Amino acid sequence: MKLYNFSLAPNGMRVSAFLKEKGLKLDVHELDVRAGDQFKEPFQSMNPFNCVPFLELDNGSIISESVSICRYLEELHPEPQLFGDTPEKRAKIDMWNRRLELDALSPMGHAIRNKLPMFEGKVLAGTRNNIEQSPVVIERAFQMLNIFMGRVDPHLASNDFISGSEFSVADITGYFLFAGCDRLGFEISTEFANVLSWKARIIDRNCFKL
Amino acid sequence: MKLYNFSLAPNGMRVSAFLKEKGLKLDVHELDVRAGDQFKEPFQSMNPFNCVPFLELDNGSIISESVSICRYLEELHPEPQLFGDTPEKRAKIDMWNRRLELDALSPMGHAIRNKLPMFEGKVLAGTRNNIEQSPVVIERAFQMLNIFMGRVDPHLASNDFISGSEFSVADITGYFLFAGCDRLGFEISTEFANVLSWKARIIDRNCFKL
Repeated sequence: MKLYNFSLAPNGMRVSAFLKEKGLKLDVHELDVRAGDQFKEPFQSMNPFNCVPFLELDNGSIISESVSICRYLEELHPEPQLFGDTPEKRAKIDMWNRRLELDALSPMGHAIRNKLPMFEGKVLAGTRNNIEQSPVVIERAFQMLNIFMGRVDPHLASNDFISGSEFSVADITGYFLFAGCDRLGFEISTEFANVLSWKARIIDRNCFKL
Repeated sequence: MKLYNFSLAPNGMRVSAFLKEKGLKLDVHELDVRAGDQFKEPFQSMNPFNCVPFLELDNGSIISESVSICRYLEELHPEPQLFGDTPEKRAKIDMWNRRLELDALSPMGHAIRNKLPMFEGKVLAGTRNNIEQSPVVIERAFQMLNIFMGRVDPHLASNDFISGSEFSVADITGYFLFAGCDRLGFEISTEFANVLSWKARIIDRNCFKL
């Protein structure tokens, strides 16, 4: 099994944090995605979505998508469990991970690519084209992030972690949401004190240290 | 266990199609989301993300997010399996479902809400506010949909269904991608003949009949 990754890619770092939290080490092949390695063979055929990370199994099969990779590794190495150890816990962690991704992390990621000069010509992940950066995408992400924070803040008043009392893969998603907000220049309002407490609880966790 | 749903909501229909494919029947409570039932108690507290569908377990616990609901039901009723019956198949189905959602279904859903007059004042799912509809969001979705179709078309040359030889939950996502494209006025180019063949293979499946 071999992981193809780029150390500076946020989705790559999500899988690295997951591996560290699980105490797992994989054989890693570093791709230089800034130089366009992911568009060259054999990588183009391995992952035609031209993104990292992706995992090559011993039978040659490829699994891309950071959460799908983590889910697969959890099945092979159940402890410590990060996706939940009962059907109900697994459903709740999955629900929170999806809410985080669809309502916050994904719009935030699009906003970063529409804002930072380094993403000109690369506005959509895994592409090189002339799609232009748009301030509308950034503004919409700010609106969605504020709505999201308002919805999770009351929930976090009585939960140490996003899916309850235990740290999970959804908190790893949360960490990268906070990191992305910093990069985007989106400041979390002090009105969302429970969100800020959650951030403080997870930010120094060992799995996030390089 | 009770499902709170709105029969005309695409994410509600995804769960209904899943139930039909599994041969399951649930006690369903219909919410009129056009009249704003989801903002009233007890529904507001049950799902502060103000979306349908959501599932109430017998212990009072709530699971929202269509895919998380389906994943939970698959654990209770494994056959016929729609999320895969081995770790590798589960990872691949999850990967395809994510690619479909993040690169196609989600931008398509945002575009519909930014285009159709019925979504004025409801541009973001589960909200009522004055965020304006934007043509930029629609244009970006069209770009993403074309890129997505170009990436999946070669894969579908040798796969009957999106994750291989078996129908899965990711094909249910695919069906609602096609339905949404029709609603949005996004026509799939005949250049993507394998995508159109996939559409033809799934569109008449019994689980999608009302």
